Amino acid sequence: MQNHQWIYRRAPDGAIGVDNYDCVSAPVDAALDRGEVLLAARYWSVDPYMRINQARGDTWMPPHPLNQVQSSAAIGEVLASNAEGFRVGESVLAPIGWQTQARLHASQLTRIDPRDASSAYLGVLGMPGRTAWFGLTDIARVHPGELVAVTGAAGAVGLLVVQFAKLAGARVLAIAGGEEKCKYLRQLGLDCVIDHRDANLLERLAAIGKIDVLFDNVGGAVTDALLTQLALRARVVICGQMSQYQGRLDVPELAPRFLHHVLYQRATIQGVLARDYLHRHDEMLSIVAPLVRSGRVILPERIIDGFEQLPAALAGLFTNSTVGKVVVRA
Amino acid sequence: MQNHQWIYRRAPDGAIGVDNYDCVSAPVDAALDRGEVLLAARYWSVDPYMRINQARGDTWMPPHPLNQVQSSAAIGEVLASNAEGFRVGESVLAPIGWQTQARLHASQLTRIDPRDASSAYLGVLGMPGRTAWFGLTDIARVHPGELVAVTGAAGAVGLLVVQFAKLAGARVLAIAGGEEKCKYLRQLGLDCVIDHRDANLLERLAAIGKIDVLFDNVGGAVTDALLTQLALRARVVICGQMSQYQGRLDVPELAPRFLHHVLYQRATIQGVLARDYLHRHDEMLSIVAPLVRSGRVILPERIIDGFEQLPAALAGLFTNSTVGKVVVRA
Repeated sequence: MQNHQWIYRRAPDGAIGVDNYDCVSAPVDAALDRGEVLLAARYWSVDPYMRINQARGDTWMPPHPLNQVQSSAAIGEVLASNAEGFRVGESVLAPIGWQTQARLHASQLTRIDPRDASSAYLGVLGMPGRTAWFGLTDIARVHPGELVAVTGAAGAVGLLVVQFAKLAGARVLAIAGGEEKCKYLRQLGLDCVIDHRDANLLERLAAIGKIDVLFDNVGGAVTDALLTQLALRARVVICGQMSQYQGRLDVPELAPRFLHHVLYQRATIQGVLARDYLHRHDEMLSIVAPLVRSGRVILPERIIDGFEQLPAALAGLFTNSTVGKVVVRA
Repeated sequence: MQNHQWIYRRAPDGAIGVDNYDCVSAPVDAALDRGEVLLAARYWSVDPYMRINQARGDTWMPPHPLNQVQSSAAIGEVLASNAEGFRVGESVLAPIGWQTQARLHASQLTRIDPRDASSAYLGVLGMPGRTAWFGLTDIARVHPGELVAVTGAAGAVGLLVVQFAKLAGARVLAIAGGEEKCKYLRQLGLDCVIDHRDANLLERLAAIGKIDVLFDNVGGAVTDALLTQLALRARVVICGQMSQYQGRLDVPELAPRFLHHVLYQRATIQGVLARDYLHRHDEMLSIVAPLVRSGRVILPERIIDGFEQLPAALAGLFTNSTVGKVVVRA
């Protein structure tokens, strides 16, 4: 049995792509220690944060090491088990990385409720769901009637934030780049959808009103514009700065200073990472999983077939007009 | 009896100065309505925030109206009283503005404890004290052992923050511009004093360690450097952006983007204004006034003599090497 692996070999300067990886094969060591399982990957996740960890300096962790399998979450099927409570054929969420098989300890596995689609644990019931839920409810603490602006609103986290915010009784301004994404957003019954490529962005924002919550996945010029439109006691959640990942985390762009607006409005800006809410994942699932099962919250999946597509799928997050969560299927 | 007034006549483009004001005289209308007092100003305040309210656009309020007496807090002596509980000869804190006399309603007056110097109610026991106290204790929530960096550390608010932070058991990094200010700060027993004009500012900051609390009065390049040195869960209090007031609030400078650091460290940036804590002023006084009376907290005053000096005193906040609180004495 061969294990196929995408090795992260060369750090990118700008755009990430297939050139930064080598595909290798190695035999599988299937002699399981006590507490271990052997998993076959069924779905891999590609997420924008992976590019952050390829920045040159430390972020919330040191840079992703070179010459190792690209880290990522995945859904695996248990091929063999030496761990109590994990049976062959069962699906689990696990940090398999970009490889077709992995030996992992049971402590690294998250069970999947059989009522849910397993791939949902890479999206609405996984890291993106946790980020959106706690970013909105614990950090932004949104109230009914407030205006919530969401950048990257057609992305995995953004699409969940706009839906959670609507369910919470907020008015939602969704901002996304390009007609394809905006078209999808427009049929969600949101209060306003703006293409951030709109030449009159600032005028359009000003006409909508002051922003109580800015849930920012994108950064860059669109965020610059939104930061001038904050309401009194606005909360800005920095969830991502996707426009900056492909090189600008290393060498920052120049942008207009805005901290005086934070002063005027006594606004709060706070970063959110999914890992800070891992201990509350079950709490999120108990609320969000029923919403997904009843169809009140939907996160479209774009499924790309083939292990060999992984680097291109990651690169595509930064260039394609995909709506929702991208997963790669084995 | 003549009332002398500094009228705010022309909005500044850059530096504020005497050219923006006209000095006029008018007779005093001393016929007091019920509940009113007639005050003679004894000390006037000049504060950096006054220049914010001369920016072109709305800030936390509309711009200071032209052709009116320059607003400011002052210490007044009661010349005549038609208000119960206010006796002739008593000193009060009041929004007199830059004029020698004013008729005000009793509801606009704040009593001064006779144990305290009246001018202290323009400094440590007034707006700057409230800002420093609640910015540090309510917004930054500093803990013993944490590293607190303070910009504008020789200013009225900054000097209080460094002392409050030391009393709270924090390590304090004081940052100020110029040798005169740094010399004063060095004899306070702080952990580190840095001149922000130091050519190796970023290297020096990096050598000191990660910043748990940044209390920012200044903004600009020094803040840019500090924002790259935040510790996990750092709290950044935006109290002032003094380097930006003389024109850059209207036309923002360009500066390196930094929101990715907020994400990495899950840091919080929040604006603080003294007015938000007016309802808790007595709470601050009950703690801080005894510290002042016992000499454990000291805010030096630079007293400038003469009503005619008011515009120059305000301008001097942005150009002089004054340590502590500037007041103008009648």
